[in-house]
Amino acid sequence: MTGNARVVGARSTRVDAVEKVSGRARYVDDLEPAGTLHCKVAVSAYPHAEILSIDVAAAREMPGVVAVLTAKDVPGENQIGVSVADQPLLATTRVRMLSDRIALVAADTLEQAAAAARAIRVDYRELPVVRGTDEAVAPGTIALHEGGNVQTRKRVIKGDTAQAFEKAQLILENEFESGYQEHAYLETNGVLAIPEPDGGVTVHASAQAPFYVQKAVARVLGLDLSRVRVIQATTGGGFGGKEDYPSEPAACAALLARATGRPVKLVYTRGEDIAWSSKRHAMKIRNKLGVDAEGKLVAAQVHIACDAGAYTGLSAIVSERANSTAIGPYRSPAVRVDTDVIYTNNLFGGAFRGFGTPQVTFAMETQLDELAEKLGISPAEIRRRNMLGVGDQTATCQPLRESAPGLKVLEAALERSGYEAKRQEMLAFNRSSPTLKKGIGIGCCFYGCCLHAGGQYLEGSGALLHVRPDGSVQVAIGGTEIGQGAFTVAAQLVAQELGLPVSRVRVMPTSTESVPDSGPTVASRTTVMSGNAALDAARRVRARMLEVAAKKLALPVAELAVVAGGFGRPGGPALIGFQDAIKACIERKVNLTSEGWYAPPRKEFDPQTGLGEAYSTYCFGTQIAEVEVDLRSGRTRVVRFTAAHDVGQAINPAMLEGQVEGGVVQGMGWALMEELKLKDGRCLNANFTDYLIPTFLDAPPVDVLFIEDPYSAGPYGAKGIGEPSLIPAAAAIANAVSLATGHRFRKLPLTPERVLLELEAAGKLP
Amino acid sequence: MTGNARVVGARSTRVDAVEKVSGRARYVDDLEPAGTLHCKVAVSAYPHAEILSIDVAAAREMPGVVAVLTAKDVPGENQIGVSVADQPLLATTRVRMLSDRIALVAADTLEQAAAAARAIRVDYRELPVVRGTDEAVAPGTIALHEGGNVQTRKRVIKGDTAQAFEKAQLILENEFESGYQEHAYLETNGVLAIPEPDGGVTVHASAQAPFYVQKAVARVLGLDLSRVRVIQATTGGGFGGKEDYPSEPAACAALLARATGRPVKLVYTRGEDIAWSSKRHAMKIRNKLGVDAEGKLVAAQVHIACDAGAYTGLSAIVSERANSTAIGPYRSPAVRVDTDVIYTNNLFGGAFRGFGTPQVTFAMETQLDELAEKLGISPAEIRRRNMLGVGDQTATCQPLRESAPGLKVLEAALERSGYEAKRQEMLAFNRSSPTLKKGIGIGCCFYGCCLHAGGQYLEGSGALLHVRPDGSVQVAIGGTEIGQGAFTVAAQLVAQELGLPVSRVRVMPTSTESVPDSGPTVASRTTVMSGNAALDAARRVRARMLEVAAKKLALPVAELAVVAGGFGRPGGPALIGFQDAIKACIERKVNLTSEGWYAPPRKEFDPQTGLGEAYSTYCFGTQIAEVEVDLRSGRTRVVRFTAAHDVGQAINPAMLEGQVEGGVVQGMGWALMEELKLKDGRCLNANFTDYLIPTFLDAPPVDVLFIEDPYSAGPYGAKGIGEPSLIPAAAAIANAVSLATGHRFRKLPLTPERVLLELEAAGKLP
Repeated sequence: MTGNARVVGARSTRVDAVEKVSGRARYVDDLEPAGTLHCKVAVSAYPHAEILSIDVAAAREMPGVVAVLTAKDVPGENQIGVSVADQPLLATTRVRMLSDRIALVAADTLEQAAAAARAIRVDYRELPVVRGTDEAVAPGTIALHEGGNVQTRKRVIKGDTAQAFEKAQLILENEFESGYQEHAYLETNGVLAIPEPDGGVTVHASAQAPFYVQKAVARVLGLDLSRVRVIQATTGGGFGGKEDYPSEPAACAALLARATGRPVKLVYTRGEDIAWSSKRHAMKIRNKLGVDAEGKLVAAQVHIACDAGAYTGLSAIVSERANSTAIGPYRSPAVRVDTDVIYTNNLFGGAFRGFGTPQVTFAMETQLDELAEKLGISPAEIRRRNMLGVGDQTATCQPLRESAPGLKVLEAALERSGYEAKRQEMLAFNRSSPTLKKGIGIGCCFYGCCLHAGGQYLEGSGALLHVRPDGSVQVAIGGTEIGQGAFTVAAQLVAQELGLPVSRVRVMPTSTESVPDSGPTVASRTTVMSGNAALDAARRVRARMLEVAAKKLALPVAELAVVAGGFGRPGGPALIGFQDAIKACIERKVNLTSEGWYAPPRKEFDPQTGLGEAYSTYCFGTQIAEVEVDLRSGRTRVVRFTAAHDVGQAINPAMLEGQVEGGVVQGMGWALMEELKLKDGRCLNANFTDYLIPTFLDAPPVDVLFIEDPYSAGPYGAKGIGEPSLIPAAAAIANAVSLATGHRFRKLPLTPERVLLELEAAGKLP
Repeated sequence: MTGNARVVGARSTRVDAVEKVSGRARYVDDLEPAGTLHCKVAVSAYPHAEILSIDVAAAREMPGVVAVLTAKDVPGENQIGVSVADQPLLATTRVRMLSDRIALVAADTLEQAAAAARAIRVDYRELPVVRGTDEAVAPGTIALHEGGNVQTRKRVIKGDTAQAFEKAQLILENEFESGYQEHAYLETNGVLAIPEPDGGVTVHASAQAPFYVQKAVARVLGLDLSRVRVIQATTGGGFGGKEDYPSEPAACAALLARATGRPVKLVYTRGEDIAWSSKRHAMKIRNKLGVDAEGKLVAAQVHIACDAGAYTGLSAIVSERANSTAIGPYRSPAVRVDTDVIYTNNLFGGAFRGFGTPQVTFAMETQLDELAEKLGISPAEIRRRNMLGVGDQTATCQPLRESAPGLKVLEAALERSGYEAKRQEMLAFNRSSPTLKKGIGIGCCFYGCCLHAGGQYLEGSGALLHVRPDGSVQVAIGGTEIGQGAFTVAAQLVAQELGLPVSRVRVMPTSTESVPDSGPTVASRTTVMSGNAALDAARRVRARMLEVAAKKLALPVAELAVVAGGFGRPGGPALIGFQDAIKACIERKVNLTSEGWYAPPRKEFDPQTGLGEAYSTYCFGTQIAEVEVDLRSGRTRVVRFTAAHDVGQAINPAMLEGQVEGGVVQGMGWALMEELKLKDGRCLNANFTDYLIPTFLDAPPVDVLFIEDPYSAGPYGAKGIGEPSLIPAAAAIANAVSLATGHRFRKLPLTPERVLLELEAAGKLP
């Protein structure tokens, strides 16, 4: 029931393109109501210490200072933990990481606030620093929280792995390690909190999850949720880093706004943002695979140690995803995964594009390559033999009933890249090239689209849609626009549904005022969740319009559909124009506003065994990296990249390509160069001079392929692509580097230093 | 199906009380985003002239000036007429009133903008000034618009009045006149327009009808309605003056915001506001009544000449109401009303509490008193004999089927005031008091609640309600809070419906973003329309919660109701708490957000004859004024007031009392002291030094009585009270003054000067 104009599937221009490239978009720092105060946060001087006293008297007397708040000024609950109540907003008697907040300052200028923050005096008694997960779980190590340093354990227990390994022809077990990754969004965290006349507060935030911010602010201020309005400002990137984290600066600014009765702005410097905000988790992974003679998996066992940092944050949830997808898109009759979330005094681990899956994918894909090598088959072939498809069951025993084109995706990538031939050519080239080495590598991934069963109560998503008397449309969704194109997708879906050009649909900034709690913009769920909610709203209004149109036309409503320019018989001309139908509705006082809602069916899942319907559906991807490694410098250059992805159905191919290109480059950064250096919990390179991210000059050409295999519950069949685009990139690159160098790398990133050191140790330097 | 706590009907504290008395409420002038420009409007120097040229070159070069715009800078339609396209936003070749806009200036400061506005040079050729309705329709008078000076004619033609008058025992015909009234809201008109990054605009306005503002701004800027967001700022009073009028400053500020790319604020000075904004219409009314020997009406004929000023604005709609209610709450088998809306160069007539009805009520009630006198019966008795009730038909032949307790209202007022006895006492007192005279007078009214049939397409109203996970509620309505208590009524209704205390319901500022076009906040319609829409939203969410609760409790949903603290059997204890029910809904992913909508059934009405269902329902009121007139000064003091009103059902008696007290005092101002003096279209007293409004010292004690006779379609049976509270006040006072002085006054206001002059001319001064 769609209009003639093909809007869904078209390479529609982003609805926010002009405002962003013209500089008109308003980020938090562009907002400044009269009387705005500026906030600076005073943080801990030690990664782990007792606080003996805090003295803010001098700071309060500094010029321009309007308020200095500490924990005792919190009217509600001094607690910011998103999943577990283990994280105070403001420190009381103990600090556990360097970003623990001691006090908040609001002053007329940022400089005055910074000066006052420096004038705060704290007496500490230093405590031993817990430097890593091994140390954290070693006997005798100081416990960071009551209950010890293992925050939680996640498990998958499918079949009897011990027995299954006994039947394996070949067993391979290795340890893998990967470090922190910084989100490196263009815009740092920022919030503006405005006190409302009724005692409530409005927060404008650079955020992926306004409803998280709403809950956190309400909790800390002791307010009803209804008294806290959160409006997403234009957000310069998120990548997971603005899922839970913005709640922290938002609660700070809101506290000060409430205390001072004035708007309070808090925008992090880049240094603060890197040092304080959450990171992709450093993980240690032990991966053990058993295969039969044909290379088919008979057993898989994975242990994951996830460094949460000092507080749980989202670590338990990130780990749940690593846990559920630890063996990737492959069949295995027996699976055992043990995932431990461990407290340390290191950086704060949190959500990051891929949510733990890139780490396990790196391990799994490396293992498969090594198994293939040992079996004397092609890396492509071992994947082909094990790939999940419709009719199979996942590691969590979830049957795949539709839209699981993993094999088709793999074959498309192999074909487009010319993988097999190139691999042979490269091996030949390498034999005669002493220092320049070439490699090609595969990474496959498998990603649960939308939230895990454990978080499904958060899954329902809303929308609000008005068809205006002039035929233009306003729509609000619960998902946020963080650069990924969510608003454009919503506009396209609504336009398609109502037979309008995209330009007539305006998507409003996401606000808690307009829509119900719709969960966070994460888990590659926004196209599915907010897309379906927007469709629901559009369809409800459309149904009302069709009913009126049918009455006007004296036709059965079932005979009418949206056609070009209005309503008519499917495929025929408009019998009544869209505008005339609106007029008829207004005359009949028919409401042309509707809420929209989408919630997937309940997923059955057993958290004890980790078995069940972990996710509603899965996205499959295969990426193939081609690299050149210079053995003189150790530097790896990615020269070409092929990315084939199962997207269900493409809503906007141009945006999908952008997503995939971005994901590949961000994955490449993590694979090759991004490395946050820690010493005793302290970040040594919280800046973009010493923490290197890929530039355009580093970005390879990316050949993007989409495999369309509609997901029946997706909007027009669509699934998500936000995270799958990144997940296999590092694995593909690492496999390519291994092929190039003849050495198996099991620790990321593959910086020139690491490549040279490992090759030297292995005696593989020329 | 209500909770135990009685919320509807309770004297609940206003939800906006604290923010208003504490000064925390944010009016437009309190809003000032960074970079805000200030606007000054340059208006015509003549009430009627041709424009030969406009020169803004010098103004553009003045310090701080960012933009100077004239008609040729309007990107959309240069048209602001709310009902008829006869009013340009910016003058082109002709000006017709002194508030016609020539140019708009935006500058860094208001002073700079004002200086630049003064520097604009205009060459005019003066045209003859049309000073009043008689002159306007006289042969040879210059036509202000194509089609002549009679903008429109409204009619009621019920029966054969000529024949009916022949059968009358007594006929009385007189002319009545009343002048302009200024709304005198605490806050002048003000808007802040903010350009949006996508080319749209957001307008914060002190306004009663955000959707009018939205339409006007979209039209003038040439934007989709969806690109214009209008948010009502805290509004310091409206009284009709902020129905259509705010569209004018809003369009001005929005034009400048678009042109400059910066926020633009336009807040009128008091002088500008009085001189430029719309006024209660000056009207001339000829009222002819015929009665039988018992004083029962057999025929009524009314002619109304309404001075619209230079443009139609809402005059045709205001006049329609005067036309429909011209003979008040009385039966008459034959009725003829002719209402002419006439262009002049005077002040701009518009909406004002009562919408033309106070004028016709003054005429009708005076006539009834005089008829009673001539028949030798009491003024109370003649009303008693003619009062409409259930089973009767109105002047427009609309049958009254329910909630028409006019007689009960009348008797209650008579009894409470002790009217008959007091009247006799006063007449006796006056006989022996040479200069201090006492009088008591009745005014009855009859007012269509909600919009007239002619505007019913605007009548549907929306709401949006969220039940939050913590059990607090956010609701938005399409009606506005203009001091009348609309938000408190909405909060009470929702709280009652969901079994919550009012404090847990937050009513958001009215915004086009949240709700569909809900029509204006006028016509005493907001309690009924927005109240019903809010109830609809609450009931939809409640139904979803009840369904889940019933499942949890394994009870049929029909057995469950809202009870104290949650859901249970009606009258019994809560079987599941509200919070637990929410939790169960979240677990089941049930949407706890709902839109709400209310539209009354279609009214059948013939605009040719003026017959049919003019309004959905009617409100009856009787007010009795007691006055003392000092014949030495001519000054009238209202010493006591009784106001009995039919409200359907009282939602909040405390707010109702406040409404009635305010209405009485505003009506008293119009009756006794408020007089805008014009000379050749120019207002001579556009200030509160020379235009006198009542102060607290002038306000009489008002004894307020509510007659509850539920209106089946009203929320909990409620009807409106905003306007009925004012309508009969002047009539009652005028009748009291006539009783006191023995002289019949037919021209308002009864200033000391007028009282003395008329009494002197009549030879009735001592």
